Amino acid sequence: MIQFQCDYSEGAHPLIMQRLMETNMEQTVGYGEDEYCDEARRLIRQACDNSEVDVHFLVGGTQTNTTVIAHTLRPYQGVLCAVSGHINVHETGAIEATGHKVLAIDSADGKLTAAQIEEAVEAHRREDGPEHMVQPGMVYISLPTEVGTVYTRSELEAISAVCRRERLPLFVDGARLGYGLCSPECDITLPLLTRLADVFYIGGTKVGALFGEAVVIVDKELKRDFRYSIKRHGGMLAKGRLLGLQFATLFTDGLYTKIAQHAIDEAMRIKATLQAKGIGFLIDSPTNQQFPILSNAQLKTLEERYRFSIWQQVDAEHTAVRICTSWATKSENVDRLIEDIRALTR
Amino acid sequence: MIQFQCDYSEGAHPLIMQRLMETNMEQTVGYGEDEYCDEARRLIRQACDNSEVDVHFLVGGTQTNTTVIAHTLRPYQGVLCAVSGHINVHETGAIEATGHKVLAIDSADGKLTAAQIEEAVEAHRREDGPEHMVQPGMVYISLPTEVGTVYTRSELEAISAVCRRERLPLFVDGARLGYGLCSPECDITLPLLTRLADVFYIGGTKVGALFGEAVVIVDKELKRDFRYSIKRHGGMLAKGRLLGLQFATLFTDGLYTKIAQHAIDEAMRIKATLQAKGIGFLIDSPTNQQFPILSNAQLKTLEERYRFSIWQQVDAEHTAVRICTSWATKSENVDRLIEDIRALTR
Amino acid sequence: MIQFQCDYSEGAHPLIMQRLMETNMEQTVGYGEDEYCDEARRLIRQACDNSEVDVHFLVGGTQTNTTVIAHTLRPYQGVLCAVSGHINVHETGAIEATGHKVLAIDSADGKLTAAQIEEAVEAHRREDGPEHMVQPGMVYISLPTEVGTVYTRSELEAISAVCRRERLPLFVDGARLGYGLCSPECDITLPLLTRLADVFYIGGTKVGALFGEAVVIVDKELKRDFRYSIKRHGGMLAKGRLLGLQFATLFTDGLYTKIAQHAIDEAMRIKATLQAKGIGFLIDSPTNQQFPILSNAQLKTLEERYRFSIWQQVDAEHTAVRICTSWATKSENVDRLIEDIRALTR
Amino acid sequence: MIQFQCDYSEGAHPLIMQRLMETNMEQTVGYGEDEYCDEARRLIRQACDNSEVDVHFLVGGTQTNTTVIAHTLRPYQGVLCAVSGHINVHETGAIEATGHKVLAIDSADGKLTAAQIEEAVEAHRREDGPEHMVQPGMVYISLPTEVGTVYTRSELEAISAVCRRERLPLFVDGARLGYGLCSPECDITLPLLTRLADVFYIGGTKVGALFGEAVVIVDKELKRDFRYSIKRHGGMLAKGRLLGLQFATLFTDGLYTKIAQHAIDEAMRIKATLQAKGIGFLIDSPTNQQFPILSNAQLKTLEERYRFSIWQQVDAEHTAVRICTSWATKSENVDRLIEDIRALTR
Repeated sequence: MIQFQCDYSEGAHPLIMQRLMETNMEQTVGYGEDEYCDEARRLIRQACDNSEVDVHFLVGGTQTNTTVIAHTLRPYQGVLCAVSGHINVHETGAIEATGHKVLAIDSADGKLTAAQIEEAVEAHRREDGPEHMVQPGMVYISLPTEVGTVYTRSELEAISAVCRRERLPLFVDGARLGYGLCSPECDITLPLLTRLADVFYIGGTKVGALFGEAVVIVDKELKRDFRYSIKRHGGMLAKGRLLGLQFATLFTDGLYTKIAQHAIDEAMRIKATLQAKGIGFLIDSPTNQQFPILSNAQLKTLEERYRFSIWQQVDAEHTAVRICTSWATKSENVDRLIEDIRALTR
Repeated sequence: MIQFQCDYSEGAHPLIMQRLMETNMEQTVGYGEDEYCDEARRLIRQACDNSEVDVHFLVGGTQTNTTVIAHTLRPYQGVLCAVSGHINVHETGAIEATGHKVLAIDSADGKLTAAQIEEAVEAHRREDGPEHMVQPGMVYISLPTEVGTVYTRSELEAISAVCRRERLPLFVDGARLGYGLCSPECDITLPLLTRLADVFYIGGTKVGALFGEAVVIVDKELKRDFRYSIKRHGGMLAKGRLLGLQFATLFTDGLYTKIAQHAIDEAMRIKATLQAKGIGFLIDSPTNQQFPILSNAQLKTLEERYRFSIWQQVDAEHTAVRICTSWATKSENVDRLIEDIRALTR
Repeated sequence: MIQFQCDYSEGAHPLIMQRLMETNMEQTVGYGEDEYCDEARRLIRQACDNSEVDVHFLVGGTQTNTTVIAHTLRPYQGVLCAVSGHINVHETGAIEATGHKVLAIDSADGKLTAAQIEEAVEAHRREDGPEHMVQPGMVYISLPTEVGTVYTRSELEAISAVCRRERLPLFVDGARLGYGLCSPECDITLPLLTRLADVFYIGGTKVGALFGEAVVIVDKELKRDFRYSIKRHGGMLAKGRLLGLQFATLFTDGLYTKIAQHAIDEAMRIKATLQAKGIGFLIDSPTNQQFPILSNAQLKTLEERYRFSIWQQVDAEHTAVRICTSWATKSENVDRLIEDIRALTR
Repeated sequence: MIQFQCDYSEGAHPLIMQRLMETNMEQTVGYGEDEYCDEARRLIRQACDNSEVDVHFLVGGTQTNTTVIAHTLRPYQGVLCAVSGHINVHETGAIEATGHKVLAIDSADGKLTAAQIEEAVEAHRREDGPEHMVQPGMVYISLPTEVGTVYTRSELEAISAVCRRERLPLFVDGARLGYGLCSPECDITLPLLTRLADVFYIGGTKVGALFGEAVVIVDKELKRDFRYSIKRHGGMLAKGRLLGLQFATLFTDGLYTKIAQHAIDEAMRIKATLQAKGIGFLIDSPTNQQFPILSNAQLKTLEERYRFSIWQQVDAEHTAVRICTSWATKSENVDRLIEDIRALTR
C-alpha cells in the first residue's frame, strides 16, 4: 500500500538523520541554548534576509499555534481566522484552552481577504457596547492554507497593510510553508514574508524534519519573554539541539527549498494527470495537497493500491479525497499512480 | 569540558538511533496509532505486569505533567505536591495555566508522606466554608524526587492507601523513573508502582531516548478520552512512531533497566568517593543526582574540567552543586572525576 | 424620553424593595446560607414541583452561564449553542476564558433543533480522528432566545431526548424565563422544564429583581461541589440573603408569573398595533422583545419620544429595532406608544 | 444572638436604602454608563484628589481581584502576595483559574515588605534559566490585611518605590479600605494611596453598601479596555446604577469615612477592654477585626450571647477568635459585650 494520505508518513531527510547520528554522543546544554540552535538561527535569519528576527524552535504545530497566540493576545481578545483554519477545527480547542475565542470568518478557499479583516474590525468598532464582545486582537492565516491554496504577494501585502493600520499582529502558520513558497502560483519569498508578517513559522515536521517548527518573530513587542511562553505551554524541548540540528541542516545549501520543490513537482504531475482525465477538484490547489473528486468506482480502484485521506462526501456517487505529496514522495510511486489514474474508467 | 550538570546532555542510546535509521523511510500512520507504538504499548504493559493499562506517548515532562493533571482534576480542585516539586517550581506555571492551583506541602527531602496528605485533606474538610478554598483533587509525587530521593515500598503503599481512601488519584512523575527503580535504596518495582499509582509516566528523555515520556494510566476513569487531552495540550506528535520506536527499543531485552543501572553505578562510585573525602551533602541521594557541598576552592578546581549545576549557596565559603550521571555517562570520565576529587584539598 | 430599549432599565418590584427595607438591619450569615435563601429554595422547589433539585443564587447572567458551563464540561469538551446564543456573542469570551469552545450551530430563529444536536454529535463521532476536534459536551439553549422566540413542548422534549440518549447535559438559559413561560405560544411550564433540563436558571435581573439568577440543578452529578464553582468564578455574594429575599418574594403568591405576564400583555398590544399598521418584523416573537422593521422616517418620529435598541440595518431605508417591555413597563406609556405608532406615516 | 463574626451581616446604610427606594422606578441605561455611576466616579476622583483616575464598579471582592489581576499580568507572570493573602487562600483558586500562579511570600503579620518584594524579583533574575519559573509580574497587598494590620505611610512608600523601579504594578485590595484608613495607626490617606498604588479598590460590601467594590485605576496602561475585562469575568452588572448610587451616597458628605470610623471606635473599645482584662491577642490589630485568644471557658460563656468567627486553635485550652465590628455595629451591643468581657473569669 502506497501512502499519499498525508505529508508526515516518513521519518526525516537522510541528511538530517546523518547529522543526528554524527552528533549523537556530543554533550550540549539543553533547552535550545546550544550551538546547533545558534547555527540554525543564523541560517534562518540569513534566509529571511533579516538579522534582527528572533528564532525559536518548537516541536509541533498545535503547540506552536497555541504558544504564539496566547503570547500575543490580551485576555479579552480573540484571533481572526478563516472558518477552515487549523486552530478553529483541528486542535481540540487548544486556543480556547488558553482563554481565547477563535473569531471564525467565512471562506470558500481557506483564505482571508484584507477586506474581511477590515470589516471584522470595523464591525466590532461600530458595536454599541463593544466590550460585550471579544475584541479582534490578531490575525491568523496559513500559507498554504488547509486546502492547499496560497496567497499572492498582493493579497498578503493588503492583509499586512490592514493589520498594521489596525495594530493587529499578523501571524502566518507555515506548517507547510515550504510547499507554499515553492508553488508555481506563489510569488511570495521568505524575505517578503518576513517583511509582511509579525510572526510566522517555518514548518519542519511536514517538510523534511522528524519534527519541529521554527518560529520567526519579527515584531519587537512579541519578542519579549517568548521563552517563558514556550516553557509555560510545555514546548521547550530538553534536548533542544535536536531541533537546531534539523533546521541547520534544512537551511544549509537550500535543502528546505529543494525538497519542498520536489513535493510540488510531483503534486503538479498528479494534478495534470487528473485534469487530463477530466476529473474535477474540490478546490484548485497549487501546492502539495490535491483534492480530486473521484467517483466511487474510481476511488475503489485506487484504494486497492494507495491510501488517500477521505476529505468530503460530495454526493452519493462522488467523494473528494486528499492526495498529498511530500519531500519523501518517491517519483516511481507517483509514476505508478499516474498510470493507474490514466487507466481509470468513470 | 566534561558535563555532569544534567542527564539530558547527549542524544539517544545507539540502539535507538539504529532503529530510527532502519525505519526512517517507512510509511506509517501518524499520531501514535502506528504499529511501533502498539509494540511499545505491549512491551510496557508486560513490564508493568498489567495488560489493562492504557499507554500514551508524549514528548516532554512539563507537557506530560500538565496534560495528566488538567485531565484529572475538576475545575475547582488543586494538586497536592511537595513544595520542591517540579510542577510547583520549574514549569513556568504550566499547571496554573490550565486553571489549577498547586497545593504545595513543606518537605525537607522532596517527598510527601501519607500523613501529610491525610492532614491536607482533613484540614480542608474541617474548614467552616471549604468551598472558599481549593479542594485537594489529586496527589503528585516524583520517583525519584527533584533532589534524588526515593520512596520506599512501605511509604508508597501508605500514600496509595490514603489516596484510595480519600479518592484522590495518585500521579507519579517518573521523568527519572529508571534511576529511581534502579537505586539501591528503592524496593519498588514497575509492577508494584502500577498497582499503587493511578497514573504515572516512564521517563525517556533522561533515560536513553531522544525525547519522550510514556504515560501509563491505570485508573479506569482517567483512561476516558485521554487522547483528546493530549491533543488539546499540543502533545500529540505527528510522527508518533518516533516515540513508539524509542520505547519499544527501551523495553526490549531490559534495555531501560540496564542503562539506568549504569547511571546509578557511576553515581554511587562518585558518592562513595565524596564521602571518603569527607565532603558533605545537601541531601543524601541514592540516585543519579548527587548534591555535594564543595568549598569554593574545591569548586573552582573541579570547574576547570567539569561542568556541574550550581544548586545552592550554602554559606559564604560553600556551594552545593548537582552532579548528574546518566545512561550516557562514560566510565572513564567518572574515573577521572574520582581521581580529581581524591586530589582535592579543602 | 420613555425607554423601551431593554428590560433592565428600572430597579426592582416594589414588594422586593419593601422586603429589603424591612430586613435591612437584620444580622444573617453570609454566602447564601441564611434563612431567606433557604426559604427561596423551598419556594422554587415547590414551583418546579421537584423537592430534590438544588437551587443556587448568582448575581448575573454571564456569570451564571460561565459557572454552569465550566462546572459541567470536561476540559476538552465544548458547548453546542445557536450561533446567536448569548454565550457565543455577548459575553466577551467568558466561556472561552474558562478553556472551552462554543460550538456554534446555524439558526435563523435563535433556536436549536433536536436534529441539529444529533447531527453535531454524529458528525463528531464519524470523524476519522475525533480527538483532534472539540468534543460536544453539553447543549446550551435559551428560553426565550435572544430574538424572543420560544421552544414548544414537543421541541423541548425532542431536544431533551437527544441529550439524554447522547449523555449531553441540557442547560437552559432562562435570563428571561418568565417572559418565555408566559408567552401565548409557549406550552412549557416550570415543572416540565425541570423534568426536561439538567440545569437551568430562572432570571431575576430582567424579571422584577434588582439582580439575581436562580440556578436549578436537576442532574445529580452536576450538583456535586457547585458552590466551589460559584466561588471560583467570583459569583458568591457575601450578603447572599439579598438574593434569597428577592427570589422568595418573586416566588410568593405567584409574583414572578404575574409580573412576567404583564410584560407579555403589553408586548402583545404593541405587536398587534404594529401588525395592524402593516409594519413587518425581523422575526416573529411571541415574547417581551419585538423586532419591527421601521422606515427611517418612522424611526425618526418615534425616537423623539422613545428609546429603542437599534438592532440591525435592514436596507438603506429600513432599520429593525428592538422594543422591550418588562415587569416595570407602564401601561400608559404603552398606550402612548400605540397611539404614536398608529399615527405613523410611511 | 448578637453577631460579631463578620462585617457583612447586615444590609446597607439607611441613606443608601433611601436612595435606592427614591430612584427605584427611574429608567436608566445599563452596565455602569448611567448618571449615578458618573456622579460616583466624580466624587471618588475628588476623594482621591486625582481627576485622571478611571473608576469602575464591580460587585464583589473575589471578582474584583480576579478581574484586576488577570487584566494586568502577562500570561507567564504571577502575582506576589503574602501567604495569608485572600487571593492565596480564600478564593477557591479564582486567580489560578485565569492561568496565573500566586507567588506566596511568608509573612507573620499579613504584610509584605519592600525588601521581600525586591528579593523575590532579584531571586528570579538571578536564576540560571528564569524562563523555567513564573515571572513576578505584579504585587498584591491588602489594606488592611486579612488579619487587620495596616501599612504605615513609609512602608507603603517603600513598596511603591520598589514596584516602580521593578516595573511591577502595585495592586491594593481595599475590601476593608475604610477600616484601614480610619485606623489610629494608619497614616495613609486616599490621595496618598492614589499616588502610591497603580490600581486599588474601595470596598463597599463591608463598609456600608449592599455590595460593590470601586476599582480605581491610576496607571495609564492598565486603564485600557478594562471594561472588556469586567465583562469577560462576569462582573458587569446589568443595573449598574445600583453600584453608582451606593458609591455616590458613600462619598457624599464623607459618609464612607464616618461609618468606617464608627466601626474602628467600637473595635478599639472592645480591644481596650480585652487588654485591660489581660486577654492576649493572636496579632495586634488596629482595625475593625480583633483576634483575642480566649480560654475555652471564656469562649463558652461568650458564645451564649455572641457569635464570633473561630479563627485558630491555639492550644488545647485556648482558641483565637475573630471579633468584627462594622459600620452597622450597634453601640449598645458593644456595651453589652464589654460588660460581659469584664465579667469573665479565666
